[in-house]
Amino acid sequence: MRGRYKAGGARPALLIVAMLKLPGLLLLLSVSSVCCPPGALSALPLASRRGPQQRPQPRPYQTRYFPQKIDHFGFVQDLTFQQRYLVADQHWRKDNGSILFYTGNEGDITWFCNNTGFMWDTAEELNAMLVFAEHRYYGESLPFGNKSYTDSKHLNYLTSEQALADFAILIQHLKETIPGAQNAPVIAIGGSYGGMLAAWFRMKYPHVVVGALAASAPIWQFEDLVPCGTFYSIVTNDFKKSGQCCSESILNSWEAINRVSSTDDGLKWLSSAFHLCSPLKTKQDVAVLKAWLSETWVNLAMVNYPYKADFLQPLPAWPIQVVCKFLKNPKQPDKLLLQNVFQAANVYYNYSGAASCLNTSQSATGNLGLMGWYYQACTEMVMPMCTDGVNDMFEPSKWNFHEFSEECFKLWKVRPRPSWIPSVYGGKNISSHSNIIFSNGGLDPWSGGGVTQNITDSLIAIVIPEGAHHLDLRASNPDDPKSVLQARALEVQYMKQWIEKSRHKY
Amino acid sequence: MRGRYKAGGARPALLIVAMLKLPGLLLLLSVSSVCCPPGALSALPLASRRGPQQRPQPRPYQTRYFPQKIDHFGFVQDLTFQQRYLVADQHWRKDNGSILFYTGNEGDITWFCNNTGFMWDTAEELNAMLVFAEHRYYGESLPFGNKSYTDSKHLNYLTSEQALADFAILIQHLKETIPGAQNAPVIAIGGSYGGMLAAWFRMKYPHVVVGALAASAPIWQFEDLVPCGTFYSIVTNDFKKSGQCCSESILNSWEAINRVSSTDDGLKWLSSAFHLCSPLKTKQDVAVLKAWLSETWVNLAMVNYPYKADFLQPLPAWPIQVVCKFLKNPKQPDKLLLQNVFQAANVYYNYSGAASCLNTSQSATGNLGLMGWYYQACTEMVMPMCTDGVNDMFEPSKWNFHEFSEECFKLWKVRPRPSWIPSVYGGKNISSHSNIIFSNGGLDPWSGGGVTQNITDSLIAIVIPEGAHHLDLRASNPDDPKSVLQARALEVQYMKQWIEKSRHKY
Repeated sequence: MRGRYKAGGARPALLIVAMLKLPGLLLLLSVSSVCCPPGALSALPLASRRGPQQRPQPRPYQTRYFPQKIDHFGFVQDLTFQQRYLVADQHWRKDNGSILFYTGNEGDITWFCNNTGFMWDTAEELNAMLVFAEHRYYGESLPFGNKSYTDSKHLNYLTSEQALADFAILIQHLKETIPGAQNAPVIAIGGSYGGMLAAWFRMKYPHVVVGALAASAPIWQFEDLVPCGTFYSIVTNDFKKSGQCCSESILNSWEAINRVSSTDDGLKWLSSAFHLCSPLKTKQDVAVLKAWLSETWVNLAMVNYPYKADFLQPLPAWPIQVVCKFLKNPKQPDKLLLQNVFQAANVYYNYSGAASCLNTSQSATGNLGLMGWYYQACTEMVMPMCTDGVNDMFEPSKWNFHEFSEECFKLWKVRPRPSWIPSVYGGKNISSHSNIIFSNGGLDPWSGGGVTQNITDSLIAIVIPEGAHHLDLRASNPDDPKSVLQARALEVQYMKQWIEKSRHKY
Repeated sequence: MRGRYKAGGARPALLIVAMLKLPGLLLLLSVSSVCCPPGALSALPLASRRGPQQRPQPRPYQTRYFPQKIDHFGFVQDLTFQQRYLVADQHWRKDNGSILFYTGNEGDITWFCNNTGFMWDTAEELNAMLVFAEHRYYGESLPFGNKSYTDSKHLNYLTSEQALADFAILIQHLKETIPGAQNAPVIAIGGSYGGMLAAWFRMKYPHVVVGALAASAPIWQFEDLVPCGTFYSIVTNDFKKSGQCCSESILNSWEAINRVSSTDDGLKWLSSAFHLCSPLKTKQDVAVLKAWLSETWVNLAMVNYPYKADFLQPLPAWPIQVVCKFLKNPKQPDKLLLQNVFQAANVYYNYSGAASCLNTSQSATGNLGLMGWYYQACTEMVMPMCTDGVNDMFEPSKWNFHEFSEECFKLWKVRPRPSWIPSVYGGKNISSHSNIIFSNGGLDPWSGGGVTQNITDSLIAIVIPEGAHHLDLRASNPDDPKSVLQARALEVQYMKQWIEKSRHKY
């Protein structure tokens, strides 16, 4: 999951321009008078503990393909496409096994497979076959091949409902074709948007999966279910807690950028100071720079892991702490402040030291399917967000649905339906469902739209105070905080319960 | 709900021809050697008790319209249509009311409204507002006006999923706009296909309805969930129980028709003997005649009510008993037998005495949307049926999916997906759901595909041994058998429980 139009791989220029017109992207000028609170560092360990570099290790899986209907919900479009899925059955037991099914989200499934070590770490204990199903329109699972993104007609089947139906049909196929799988309990597991899908999958197809682990799944980041400012205020808190005056420095940086960029010389200076690959020339370029910086801070909040890792970018342990070392003095003169902001951003973009210049059209791994997510955000996945520069460190920007809708229409010739997701998946009224774990990291901005309190005794919330975005789904690490170890243990315990209970049925 | 391609209003000639090619319609020649069992009449009261004529009384409702998205599951088709719904709020209480929501099925909603007296009889006790929502593509709720049925492109949005989404969005609208309705518990009620929708609605949208009464809902009449012969064997049993040698007479009639119709003179004689509006000329016409007679017996089984009623046709009490009075001698010479078969059919088609001739292209009320249901049967609602002339009184006909699919493709340019409904709604594995009553009549052929045993303590089966098709949903009648009175009382009791439980939430 990325912030709304906030992160992702390379973006075509047209898209950037359009995105900038979207509310929350073209952050307006602001001056913050918020002082640096004392003791802001106390909540996190000050030292960035250094574990072994966590490049996700390639995993031993088989790649398979399954023909799925392009349209499960209509009969005119009767063609199929090949859905990719990965299978790892090293620990699978025919007589007594379970299936852990990753409900793929907006990206290449191999990347999620390699970044979901928890499933690999758990397979043996549950005699589990691991299945990672790619989400349609991402990775190799393109319904219309290279025409899939040509226009809204071809994109029309990119919805969560179609994706869930793919998962259900695929599991049915696995059960029918793999010896011993017929009665094997299946558990859905997913993180971020994949976590939302895992939860929704259990809600809509409880006959297919006995339970779901929905990690960092902001199923309530819709319509009026949570305040629109929550997301960015959590990002801000992460920075507040990670270095003295850190968030104030970022808050002040926007105005500094505006001032410096008001002259041609200033634009040149900024381009050079930020080592930009393409020099800034217009006001719009400056807006792109600010949006890109905002994305950077958001992404850092998401991947603020306690050890070196390479999820969106290769990063040190507790990367926000490292970033904040450059952002201790919010009241410096503009150029000094901005030089420090560059150093801070450079931690994110150039920790490996390989980048010769920084590219404002890239902010994260290319494994995520940016275009697909933008389309989804412009249709079903309408997540209202706003900033005010008071409760957060960003330029104030109100949520303006009308403007958002106009931009979506210009981009894709479709209109977003902001109330559809709550209508179809129940909003806050989900207590009739069962066997879903909602896990959230306290550092993760997406936790603001997540379920962080138990709803019933089988709709369980697990909060990991020291966790960023779905830390619990990552592979075990010596530097894991206790809270995530406890979370994973509890998750496995629930999964065992679901499996046990399902066995009594057969 | 009609038998597969077995009933309905006027049919265009092209459709009849195509239908005849469908398996189960072109019933093959057979000779039955089954003898007339003694005591076959014992199961039902012999005298046809005569209650007051049950023409459904027009009910005092308001007609309203709500703009629905034509496609809930895609964003290219962004147009809306006006969904008709009826509201009766005479007994509605703002402070403490509930909403009984009829999930409209394949026909004009006013007809269902006037034929669902149970809801009217129950409204006061539950302080309930009654809402009857018309199913898209039926009655006045045509997504593309008079173009709705022109081709498969326009028919593409005629699915159960779209209909359920309509219901959910409509209820959301009612809750937002009717004072006092926001927290009012809503109960879905439906019969036949409408009953399936009610059950599925609770399964898929438990946040919208607190429970569902699914009357005569054959949710298992799909794929291999029940034997394909069950439906017609129940029809046959109804005739067996209603008159000595009755089912044998019908069984023998097919062969008699074949023999008589083998000559031109015989065709003339048959046309005259059956008072047909259009004389029989070809073998295909004879096949149409037999299909129409089969439909007649099926329809009689569905409306075998204990009092005079006018549902599919105006009929006497226990109409099969009346029909069977003409069918006591299965071993008569062909022409005598067929004259009696005409008299029997004439009970169904001409009880009022108004028909000057019989039309083999009509077999039931015109309030049902025949074309729509045929399309649905050729896409999602694939209900395998078969006859063998041994366990039933029909000509043997195997279920042949391939042939069925070919015919559907010729007719609509779509292919049926027989496994989709079990995949999406769970087949027999529905125990995770809650608060659904499945009621079934023992005389109803559709009960063979229904839920007739409790699944859990909140998935309840109620069987009404003396009931035909959703007798419990009909208005109270002095000639109601005890079993239906008990069923209705139990249904109300459960509904009260659901309402009570939901109040604790708010």
